[in-house]
Amino acid sequence: MQQSAPTIYLAGPEVFLPDAVAIGQRKKELCAAYGFQGLYPFDNEVAPNASGEPVDARIYRANLQLIQRADLGIVNLTPFRGPSADVGTVFELGFLIGLGKIVFGYTNDPRDLIERVKQFDRTSFDPERELWRDVDGMAIEDFGNADNLMIDQALNEARNPIVRTHNQSSDKYRDLSLFEVCLRMAATKLRIKQAV
Amino acid sequence: MQQSAPTIYLAGPEVFLPDAVAIGQRKKELCAAYGFQGLYPFDNEVAPNASGEPVDARIYRANLQLIQRADLGIVNLTPFRGPSADVGTVFELGFLIGLGKIVFGYTNDPRDLIERVKQFDRTSFDPERELWRDVDGMAIEDFGNADNLMIDQALNEARNPIVRTHNQSSDKYRDLSLFEVCLRMAATKLRIKQAV
Repeated sequence: MQQSAPTIYLAGPEVFLPDAVAIGQRKKELCAAYGFQGLYPFDNEVAPNASGEPVDARIYRANLQLIQRADLGIVNLTPFRGPSADVGTVFELGFLIGLGKIVFGYTNDPRDLIERVKQFDRTSFDPERELWRDVDGMAIEDFGNADNLMIDQALNEARNPIVRTHNQSSDKYRDLSLFEVCLRMAATKLRIKQAV
Repeated sequence: MQQSAPTIYLAGPEVFLPDAVAIGQRKKELCAAYGFQGLYPFDNEVAPNASGEPVDARIYRANLQLIQRADLGIVNLTPFRGPSADVGTVFELGFLIGLGKIVFGYTNDPRDLIERVKQFDRTSFDPERELWRDVDGMAIEDFGNADNLMIDQALNEARNPIVRTHNQSSDKYRDLSLFEVCLRMAATKLRIKQAV
């Protein structure tokens, strides 16, 4: 890997897996194979220190610094603890877009948001407004998107629509096949001679 | 209201309520009472048009323009369809932080994230790592935060920690008492002579 390889921030809920560090290592190796340097969140590498600064504050600052350093971002939008993506990942997506970084995203769930909410929740059709509502009466977006429109559109506007699996993945937080699709898209976009 | 009143972007899941427009109006009136101009997301004001541009794309662009125009943001982080905040709101929080805007946040749920995940999910203690895991084996953050550390720390770093209710609100998506606390914090921070 060249010293000057473009850097990619690797956002996703896999930081919460028991084997989070190993998954991060695999993601970084795949990045290197495509001519990139992967920057993996610090969640698992920050230990309490003598400074007295809280661990969560140090993780936050370390992750923000990585994002600022990154040339691109690849965000794993696979649903997490409910019908939508991990909020930590989504925060980072918003921050990446705010900084004007190039962003790619993927999800290992094939369904539209509305299908997941219908499975997750007791929903009902509102005939007056002609839309579906969840158990709290909240309108469910029905644009054929993978998630909330702000997420899908952030990637559409970047001309890198969310890459969505066709079949439910058997190991949805570890499957890196769509991550690799994003790497290929990124490599094409940056016209990097692919090493793979 | 002065023409030059500082503007506040009003992010939150209340855009999905049946009475979303009325709630937005109340939020804007409260903003005016504190010397601000409220900018409410466009989700409910964009109709299909002849341009052929999709509604979701137009909402996204309109919301991003409002955020760019805003001097501040107040984000409603009340949990939505699961243990965490609405991902649309969290995307906007990340975008606000990326743009360097002053941000305030509140939640009408008194609990820590970990308490909600334990209620929402089948959890277990991992004695080796000394942490709790959800049904998918994903580590549950236990920093005493209201939500994912990226959200809490974004507001801590801004020196405006999340304002959290002490008692569960009876109408958690419409209760504006903590929104008003955020307005007071914002007014103090901007040293605006309060009209209320």
